[in-house]
Amino acid sequence: MSLVLDPTAQDLLFREARTANTFTDEPVTDEQVQAIYDLVKYGPTSMNQSPLRVTLVRSPEARERLVQHMAEGNQQKTAAAPLVAILSADNEFHEELPELFPHFPQAKDLFFGERSAREGSAALNAALQAAYFIIGVRAAGLAAGPMTGLDFAGVQKEFLDDDHSPLMVVNIGKPGEDAWFPRSPRLGFDQVVTTV
Amino acid sequence: MSLVLDPTAQDLLFREARTANTFTDEPVTDEQVQAIYDLVKYGPTSMNQSPLRVTLVRSPEARERLVQHMAEGNQQKTAAAPLVAILSADNEFHEELPELFPHFPQAKDLFFGERSAREGSAALNAALQAAYFIIGVRAAGLAAGPMTGLDFAGVQKEFLDDDHSPLMVVNIGKPGEDAWFPRSPRLGFDQVVTTV
Repeated sequence: MSLVLDPTAQDLLFREARTANTFTDEPVTDEQVQAIYDLVKYGPTSMNQSPLRVTLVRSPEARERLVQHMAEGNQQKTAAAPLVAILSADNEFHEELPELFPHFPQAKDLFFGERSAREGSAALNAALQAAYFIIGVRAAGLAAGPMTGLDFAGVQKEFLDDDHSPLMVVNIGKPGEDAWFPRSPRLGFDQVVTTV
Repeated sequence: MSLVLDPTAQDLLFREARTANTFTDEPVTDEQVQAIYDLVKYGPTSMNQSPLRVTLVRSPEARERLVQHMAEGNQQKTAAAPLVAILSADNEFHEELPELFPHFPQAKDLFFGERSAREGSAALNAALQAAYFIIGVRAAGLAAGPMTGLDFAGVQKEFLDDDHSPLMVVNIGKPGEDAWFPRSPRLGFDQVVTTV
């Protein structure tokens, strides 16, 4: 084996971890979410931009509103998951750069001007952080159910504002009965990696 | 602690792992890259789209061509790293969906038509996989140096084709002397997470 990470951790995070479609009733606590964040906040982003924002949908009323914006095939599991999180990108992330990148005070100035440049950087870096978040959910011994089958404009209007673009919705909890389909095939190394 | 992942693995992947700016001369082998891929290929993507593609820049001639497209501040470390990888998104990923998502044969058809819809999905999902790849490099006991300071159009023209959009370039190796700056601050939990 060429990996240093021990096999138990490999299984927990990648090999045996799966996207869950059903969950038990066991709650996901704020302490668990805090522990997940306190681990994955260290994942790298461009210039430490850290644009990911997380909206925990806890109230039954908010959950009901969210479910209506999910694709039909995602509604039942989104209604039933112990916790649901909306992951979004803060397109005004540059406002935090003086705090996040203190050794380069001009960093914020690089992102003034066209909003579209900020949106591209926010989308990439928030997606990196969304992946770290999924890994973090698994590190907490929980299953994640990330979903992009949803009405993004509807979720933005209902839960966010013009400065925040939703990336995905993630169901979180202990996997329930028949929680997943058989694993789908992956591309072979030679289909993905080339050398020049 | 609310995490199941053991503290050694937490340190290896997040808490002590850092973006390296210098590297030792120790080579990164194809076996290591294979082991990294065979771990992180299991990370989830929308409909198992798996659009990430990896170009390993191994020849001195190719490395020289790549360095010229990096931002000035990234050139020296890109020239010196034991291995450099270009991570890109395959915007024609839907061609592989019959293999990757066999239980839904119509999946490929959802992505015919406008290329821009495929590009958005490829960008998000390849970014998720780029984050898994960075985690995988760390799981191999190596340091990653992901960079977005580069001429993307130039890298695409030089190394890819119209169907592949570069996301970032990653230096890979054992960290060298003075490999990193002090860690920059992270946003607090309450700056990132809200509850509704």
